[in-house]
Amino acid sequence: MALKINKIVNGPIPDSFLADETKRLDSLKFDGQHLEVLDQLLLPHEFKYIPVNDVSDAFNVIRSMQVRGAPLIAVVGSLGLLLELNKSSELNFRAIREKIDYLISSRPTAVDLRNSVTGLIPILEVEGITDDVKLAKCREYLLNVYTAEKLQNRILVWNAYQELLSAFPGKEKFTVMTICNTGSLATVSWGTALGVIRALHSENRLNLAYVLETRPYNQGIRLTATELLHGQVPFKLITDSMAAWAMKNHQVDCVLVGADNVARNGDTANKIGTYMLAVLCKHHNINFYPVVPFTTINKNISSGEEIKIEERPASELLRVNGVLVGNSECPVWNPAFDVTPAHLITKILTDFGNWAPDALEEQIPK
Amino acid sequence: MALKINKIVNGPIPDSFLADETKRLDSLKFDGQHLEVLDQLLLPHEFKYIPVNDVSDAFNVIRSMQVRGAPLIAVVGSLGLLLELNKSSELNFRAIREKIDYLISSRPTAVDLRNSVTGLIPILEVEGITDDVKLAKCREYLLNVYTAEKLQNRILVWNAYQELLSAFPGKEKFTVMTICNTGSLATVSWGTALGVIRALHSENRLNLAYVLETRPYNQGIRLTATELLHGQVPFKLITDSMAAWAMKNHQVDCVLVGADNVARNGDTANKIGTYMLAVLCKHHNINFYPVVPFTTINKNISSGEEIKIEERPASELLRVNGVLVGNSECPVWNPAFDVTPAHLITKILTDFGNWAPDALEEQIPK
Repeated sequence: MALKINKIVNGPIPDSFLADETKRLDSLKFDGQHLEVLDQLLLPHEFKYIPVNDVSDAFNVIRSMQVRGAPLIAVVGSLGLLLELNKSSELNFRAIREKIDYLISSRPTAVDLRNSVTGLIPILEVEGITDDVKLAKCREYLLNVYTAEKLQNRILVWNAYQELLSAFPGKEKFTVMTICNTGSLATVSWGTALGVIRALHSENRLNLAYVLETRPYNQGIRLTATELLHGQVPFKLITDSMAAWAMKNHQVDCVLVGADNVARNGDTANKIGTYMLAVLCKHHNINFYPVVPFTTINKNISSGEEIKIEERPASELLRVNGVLVGNSECPVWNPAFDVTPAHLITKILTDFGNWAPDALEEQIPK
Repeated sequence: MALKINKIVNGPIPDSFLADETKRLDSLKFDGQHLEVLDQLLLPHEFKYIPVNDVSDAFNVIRSMQVRGAPLIAVVGSLGLLLELNKSSELNFRAIREKIDYLISSRPTAVDLRNSVTGLIPILEVEGITDDVKLAKCREYLLNVYTAEKLQNRILVWNAYQELLSAFPGKEKFTVMTICNTGSLATVSWGTALGVIRALHSENRLNLAYVLETRPYNQGIRLTATELLHGQVPFKLITDSMAAWAMKNHQVDCVLVGADNVARNGDTANKIGTYMLAVLCKHHNINFYPVVPFTTINKNISSGEEIKIEERPASELLRVNGVLVGNSECPVWNPAFDVTPAHLITKILTDFGNWAPDALEEQIPK
């Protein structure tokens, strides 16, 4: 089972914190027996939940990008497997192993998905218990991928929220900025950076959120704006090129971002444009915070120089919603991510406490 | 007549400098009798020149945005008026005044257009010469708007090119970055910042140009990329959000931009995203140069704080090529320009020499 780790800042978390889940635009609906996922390819123009009844359905919605976001696809894969197990009363090891491999092949680079579904294998291999007990343990494990994800996210958002309160003593309302989509559409709860913005709003502490449209995939304009409109959170959408001018002209208190990969020294890989924000924060004396599950901190990577940056095809930059904007023969440089060096980061906010980058390494389990 | 001013750095300009005009994607074609303009709304997918035979045609192509760029629309308006005058052998003052007002109304904020066509009025009011002579002087004036624009642009590009050579002694090939469209499509010659990039290439001094797509209007991806493809200039298109990461990973020598308005103290208003580039240049220790006709320096404005920034409608950010990308109800902040403070500018490069921002004011005629 994936490592679960937490350390609650100024806990315990009050029951009222982010209690009103009706304001969340849920990426999935699950009642223990039935699973539906929001088709994100149709956003922002249509809200349609589609049923996922088994591993094959889970494979399809992940493969087609109808669901995206590392934590979300790990949960959808795990719940797809759970529903598959619910269908049969007997345990076929070989069939389950094949289904696990099949699920992983839906998004081979998704480490969370791989970790979550392969976590079933040790349970299958336990000796000395009946198949019925084993099946029950498998179901419990898969359900726990979902419930643990929600719990950890709640702790993460709480810790980050507490950090902001203590970093800005006496401040009543925050003006913040964010990039990409790190909200409920990328997770199964409130989200990481966007979860914190949501919490600020719930606690009546948010003045305004500036949301970058996030070229070239437009996650900001398509997904984050949709979430904030749904939840009636005050925000303004800007192009990525307007972030600097917004910082100069408006009182932006901090920038909150997610992360795909954090090195031991605190160097942080995230959506392209994040490094730009960090440099602009430095110039304008604005706090810059990645908000990340502690499990995102990669103990195998010592610094950002070891992080390989994927370059995506030119067509994904030249086309918007399928429409060709530029000449199809344009030479393009299209890195999907960038790396923000630790020295530009105020603190890294996690479900295992909030850490200055140079204090991170000693927190990492050996 | 508009002030013409020049001071050639390390002149005279060799005849060979930017001599090969076949490599230019011309915004208009004019043989003295016939005028055609490139319909920029069809770019990059179609190259179609449309005839402009009179003031009414000129009004229409400016109003519809088929031509854009301050110097270009001033020339198209002036040549439209010239063709109108060519049609009749007699001079009707009242009719010409009405046509001037009509032309100005095609783009009321375009100062260059206004200055160019109202420059005719003092000639019309000269006393003691025959109508035939007056008509000839009007034609000469209007033709000169076009020829002087080309001459001044050549001086501007030469001066800027000379500055780069002396700022980087011994450098063989430059890697540069630019935003928006400042090339032949915005002017009637090689352009300002993009003209310099073109000159570097012609002189075999260009390694690579990074071109920002320039949201929200996409002038980089639609226009600049089209010009550079046409001229076989080596470049890579990037999103605006990738500029910082490109600076960090590639050896960018300088950023070259245009300007809409320069204050006496050197504060420079230009397309939104320019201020971002200037801050990123400061952080990465990269030279930052506005390339502007000296007439763009606004002696009536003492600093950038006096420059009013136009905010454009939300729909222009939410739609790309007419396709709605975001939710139409999204709150949006959409400033069209930003102001780069003088202290972030290396030098301002003009057709009247190249000046550190704090040396600019004393060059301005009283």
